[in-house]
Amino acid sequence: MTDTARLARTFVETLEARDWAAWEVLMTPDVVYEMPQTRERIRGRDAYREFNVTYPGDWHLKPKVVIGDDVRAVVWFDWQVGDRESGDAQVFLEFDADGLITRVTDFWPEPYDPPARPEGIVERW
Amino acid sequence: MTDTARLARTFVETLEARDWAAWEVLMTPDVVYEMPQTRERIRGRDAYREFNVTYPGDWHLKPKVVIGDDVRAVVWFDWQVGDRESGDAQVFLEFDADGLITRVTDFWPEPYDPPARPEGIVERW
Repeated sequence: MTDTARLARTFVETLEARDWAAWEVLMTPDVVYEMPQTRERIRGRDAYREFNVTYPGDWHLKPKVVIGDDVRAVVWFDWQVGDRESGDAQVFLEFDADGLITRVTDFWPEPYDPPARPEGIVERW
Repeated sequence: MTDTARLARTFVETLEARDWAAWEVLMTPDVVYEMPQTRERIRGRDAYREFNVTYPGDWHLKPKVVIGDDVRAVVWFDWQVGDRESGDAQVFLEFDADGLITRVTDFWPEPYDPPARPEGIVERW
Protein backbone atom coordinates (compact mmCIF):
# COMPACT_ATOMS: atom_id res chain seq x y z
CA MET A 1 0.00 0.00 0.00
CA THR A 2 1.41 3.35 -1.02
CA ASP A 3 2.25 5.73 1.83
CA THR A 4 0.74 8.66 -0.03
CA ALA A 5 1.06 11.01 2.95
CA ARG A 6 4.80 10.47 3.09
CA LEU A 7 5.16 10.93 -0.68
CA ALA A 8 3.03 14.08 -0.57
CA ARG A 9 5.25 15.56 2.13
CA THR A 10 8.31 14.65 0.05
CA PHE A 11 6.69 16.31 -2.98
CA VAL A 12 6.47 19.63 -1.12
CA GLU A 13 9.86 19.28 0.56
CA THR A 14 11.66 18.60 -2.73
CA LEU A 15 9.96 21.65 -4.25
CA GLU A 16 11.13 23.73 -1.29
CA ALA A 17 14.67 22.32 -1.76
CA ARG A 18 14.57 22.89 -5.56
CA ASP A 19 15.75 19.27 -5.72
CA TRP A 20 14.27 18.70 -9.18
CA ALA A 21 15.77 15.23 -9.60
CA ALA A 22 14.20 13.99 -6.35
CA TRP A 23 10.95 15.80 -7.19
CA GLU A 24 10.41 14.47 -10.70
CA VAL A 25 10.92 10.79 -9.83
CA LEU A 26 7.77 11.06 -7.70
CA MET A 27 5.52 11.39 -10.76
CA THR A 28 4.71 9.78 -14.10
CA PRO A 29 6.09 11.31 -17.33
CA ASP A 30 2.55 12.28 -18.37
CA VAL A 31 1.51 13.82 -15.06
CA VAL A 32 -1.18 16.51 -15.34
CA TYR A 33 -0.96 19.69 -13.27
CA GLU A 34 -4.06 21.86 -12.89
CA MET A 35 -4.87 25.20 -11.27
CA PRO A 36 -8.69 25.43 -11.22
CA GLN A 37 -8.75 29.07 -10.12
CA THR A 38 -7.09 30.22 -13.34
CA ARG A 39 -8.30 27.25 -15.42
CA GLU A 40 -4.67 26.46 -16.34
CA ARG A 41 -3.35 23.00 -17.16
CA ILE A 42 0.16 21.72 -17.81
CA ARG A 43 0.68 18.29 -19.35
CA GLY A 44 3.81 16.27 -18.72
CA ARG A 45 6.62 16.20 -16.18
CA ASP A 46 9.07 18.11 -18.37
CA ALA A 47 6.76 21.09 -18.86
CA TYR A 48 5.76 21.00 -15.19
CA ARG A 49 9.40 21.04 -14.07
CA GLU A 50 10.13 23.93 -16.46
CA PHE A 51 7.15 25.81 -15.03
CA ASN A 52 8.51 25.43 -11.49
CA VAL A 53 12.16 26.08 -12.33
CA THR A 54 11.25 29.36 -14.01
CA TYR A 55 8.64 30.46 -11.46
CA PRO A 56 9.65 33.95 -10.27
CA GLY A 57 10.27 35.04 -6.71
CA ASP A 58 11.98 33.66 -3.61
CA TRP A 59 9.10 31.29 -2.81
CA HIS A 60 9.01 28.93 0.16
CA LEU A 61 6.61 26.13 1.09
CA LYS A 62 6.10 24.54 4.51
CA PRO A 63 3.66 21.63 5.08
CA LYS A 64 1.12 22.23 7.87
CA VAL A 65 -1.31 19.32 7.44
CA VAL A 66 -0.83 16.15 5.35
CA ILE A 67 -3.65 13.63 4.83
CA GLY A 68 -3.37 10.55 2.64
CA ASP A 69 -5.31 7.41 1.81
CA ASP A 70 -4.35 4.60 -0.63
CA VAL A 71 -4.64 6.63 -3.82
CA ARG A 72 -4.81 10.32 -2.93
CA ALA A 73 -3.23 12.84 -0.61
CA VAL A 74 -3.51 16.50 0.23
CA VAL A 75 -0.98 18.91 1.68
CA TRP A 76 -2.15 22.13 3.31
CA PHE A 77 0.95 24.29 3.38
CA ASP A 78 2.18 27.74 4.27
CA TRP A 79 3.68 29.59 1.36
CA GLN A 80 5.83 32.70 1.49
CA VAL A 81 7.35 34.84 -1.24
CA GLY A 82 10.16 37.10 -0.09
CA ASP A 83 9.58 38.94 3.19
CA ARG A 84 6.04 40.10 2.66
CA GLU A 85 3.53 37.85 0.90
CA SER A 86 2.38 34.71 2.68
CA GLY A 87 -0.68 32.54 3.08
CA ASP A 88 -2.25 29.09 3.07
CA ALA A 89 -2.52 26.85 0.01
CA GLN A 90 -3.44 23.25 -0.77
CA VAL A 91 -2.18 20.68 -3.22
CA PHE A 92 -4.18 17.53 -4.02
CA LEU A 93 -2.30 14.54 -5.45
CA GLU A 94 -3.48 11.37 -7.20
CA PHE A 95 -1.31 8.25 -7.34
CA ASP A 96 -1.21 5.23 -9.64
CA ALA A 97 -0.79 1.61 -8.50
CA ASP A 98 3.02 2.04 -8.51
CA GLY A 99 2.81 4.97 -6.11
CA LEU A 100 3.62 7.57 -8.76
CA ILE A 101 1.79 10.89 -8.91
CA THR A 102 -0.49 11.16 -11.96
CA ARG A 103 -2.36 14.37 -11.18
CA VAL A 104 -1.61 17.50 -9.17
CA THR A 105 -4.19 20.18 -8.38
CA ASP A 106 -3.27 23.42 -6.62
CA PHE A 107 -5.50 25.88 -4.78
CA TRP A 108 -4.31 29.34 -3.72
CA PRO A 109 -7.03 30.90 -1.53
CA GLU A 110 -6.63 34.66 -1.17
CA PRO A 111 -7.59 36.77 1.86
CA TYR A 112 -10.84 38.71 1.51
CA ASP A 113 -12.98 41.00 3.62
CA PRO A 114 -15.72 39.11 5.44
CA PRO A 115 -19.37 40.05 4.94
CA ALA A 116 -21.26 41.48 7.90
CA ARG A 117 -22.18 38.72 10.36
CA PRO A 118 -24.58 38.73 13.32
CA GLU A 119 -23.05 40.32 16.43
CA GLY A 120 -21.36 38.01 18.87
CA ILE A 121 -21.06 34.87 16.77
CA VAL A 122 -17.79 35.53 15.01
CA GLU A 123 -14.42 36.62 16.36
CA ARG A 124 -11.54 37.87 14.16
CA TRP A 125 -7.85 37.18 14.48
CA MET B 1 -10.40 3.30 13.98
CA THR B 2 -12.57 6.22 12.95
CA ASP B 3 -13.69 6.23 9.31
CA THR B 4 -12.99 9.93 9.00
CA ALA B 5 -13.60 9.95 5.23
CA ARG B 6 -17.13 8.63 5.71
CA LEU B 7 -17.84 11.10 8.50
CA ALA B 8 -16.45 13.97 6.42
CA ARG B 9 -18.74 13.06 3.54
CA THR B 10 -21.67 12.89 5.96
CA PHE B 11 -20.68 16.32 7.32
CA VAL B 12 -21.06 17.87 3.86
CA GLU B 13 -24.17 15.86 2.95
CA THR B 14 -26.01 16.87 6.14
CA LEU B 15 -25.13 20.51 5.45
CA GLU B 16 -26.51 20.13 1.93
CA ALA B 17 -29.67 18.54 3.39
CA ARG B 18 -29.98 21.23 6.12
CA ASP B 19 -30.35 18.24 8.45
CA TRP B 20 -29.04 20.15 11.46
CA ALA B 21 -29.77 17.36 13.94
CA ALA B 22 -27.73 14.84 11.94
CA TRP B 23 -25.04 17.45 11.32
CA GLU B 24 -24.47 18.59 14.89
CA VAL B 25 -24.08 15.11 16.38
CA LEU B 26 -20.93 14.75 14.27
CA MET B 27 -19.04 17.30 16.40
CA THR B 28 -18.12 18.18 19.96
CA PRO B 29 -20.04 20.96 21.78
CA ASP B 30 -16.89 23.10 21.81
CA VAL B 31 -15.97 22.59 18.13
CA VAL B 32 -13.96 25.45 16.59
CA TYR B 33 -14.74 26.67 13.07
CA GLU B 34 -12.16 28.82 11.28
CA MET B 35 -12.00 30.66 7.95
CA PRO B 36 -8.33 31.64 7.50
CA GLN B 37 -8.99 33.86 4.47
CA THR B 38 -11.11 36.28 6.52
CA ARG B 39 -9.42 35.44 9.84
CA GLU B 40 -12.83 34.56 11.31
CA ARG B 41 -13.42 32.05 14.10
CA ILE B 42 -16.61 30.66 15.63
CA ARG B 43 -16.47 28.78 18.92
CA GLY B 44 -19.04 26.15 19.81
CA ARG B 45 -21.55 23.98 18.03
CA ASP B 46 -24.52 26.21 18.84
CA ALA B 47 -22.96 29.33 17.32
CA TYR B 48 -21.70 27.33 14.35
CA ARG B 49 -25.17 25.90 13.68
CA GLU B 50 -26.69 29.39 13.97
CA PHE B 51 -24.11 30.68 11.48
CA ASN B 52 -25.09 28.00 8.95
CA VAL B 53 -28.84 28.20 9.52
CA THR B 54 -28.80 31.96 8.89
CA TYR B 55 -26.31 31.89 6.00
CA PRO B 56 -27.99 33.69 3.08
CA GLY B 57 -28.58 32.32 -0.40
CA ASP B 58 -29.68 29.05 -1.97
CA TRP B 59 -26.31 27.36 -1.43
CA HIS B 60 -25.49 23.79 -2.44
CA LEU B 61 -22.47 21.61 -1.72
CA LYS B 62 -21.38 18.47 -3.58
CA PRO B 63 -18.33 16.41 -2.53
CA LYS B 64 -15.78 15.80 -5.31
CA VAL B 65 -12.80 14.32 -3.43
CA VAL B 66 -12.73 12.98 0.14
CA ILE B 67 -9.48 11.93 1.84
CA GLY B 68 -9.23 10.75 5.43
CA ASP B 69 -6.71 9.21 7.80
CA ASP B 70 -7.19 8.24 11.48
CA VAL B 71 -7.58 11.75 12.85
CA ARG B 72 -8.18 14.14 9.96
CA ALA B 73 -10.09 14.41 6.74
CA VAL B 74 -10.57 16.83 3.88
CA VAL B 75 -13.45 17.30 1.47
CA TRP B 76 -12.90 19.12 -1.80
CA PHE B 77 -16.39 20.07 -2.92
CA ASP B 78 -18.27 21.97 -5.56
CA TRP B 79 -20.38 24.79 -4.20
CA GLN B 80 -23.12 26.65 -5.96
CA VAL B 81 -25.30 29.59 -4.92
CA GLY B 82 -28.44 30.03 -6.96
CA ASP B 83 -28.04 29.68 -10.71
CA ARG B 84 -24.89 31.70 -11.22
CA GLU B 85 -22.11 31.52 -8.68
CA SER B 86 -20.14 28.27 -8.36
CA GLY B 87 -16.66 27.02 -7.62
CA ASP B 88 -14.37 24.70 -5.70
CA ALA B 89 -13.82 24.81 -1.96
CA GLN B 90 -12.19 22.68 0.72
CA VAL B 91 -13.02 21.83 4.31
CA PHE B 92 -10.45 20.27 6.65
CA LEU B 93 -11.72 18.37 9.70
CA GLU B 94 -10.00 17.18 12.88
CA PHE B 95 -11.46 14.34 14.98
CA ASP B 96 -11.07 13.32 18.62
CA ALA B 97 -10.59 9.75 19.86
CA ASP B 98 -14.38 9.24 19.88
CA GLY B 99 -14.66 10.17 16.21
CA LEU B 100 -16.21 13.57 16.88
CA ILE B 101 -15.15 16.65 14.94
CA THR B 102 -13.21 19.14 17.07
CA ARG B 103 -12.05 21.60 14.42
CA VAL B 104 -13.32 22.70 11.01
CA THR B 105 -11.36 24.89 8.61
CA ASP B 106 -12.83 26.19 5.37
CA PHE B 107 -11.07 27.52 2.28
CA TRP B 108 -12.91 29.32 -0.52
CA PRO B 109 -10.44 29.86 -3.40
CA GLU B 110 -11.64 32.49 -5.87
CA PRO B 111 -10.95 32.56 -9.62
CA TYR B 112 -8.23 34.98 -10.71
CA ASP B 113 -6.51 36.02 -13.91
CA PRO B 114 -3.29 34.08 -14.48
CA PRO B 115 0.00 35.92 -14.88
CA ALA B 116 1.75 35.70 -18.25
CA ARG B 117 3.44 32.32 -18.68
CA PRO B 118 5.98 31.11 -21.26
CA GLU B 119 4.35 30.19 -24.57
CA GLY B 120 3.43 26.59 -25.09
CA ILE B 121 3.67 25.31 -21.52
CA VAL B 122 0.22 26.14 -20.25
CA GLU B 123 -3.22 25.44 -21.75
CA ARG B 124 -6.44 27.07 -20.49
CA TRP B 125 -9.87 25.54 -20.07
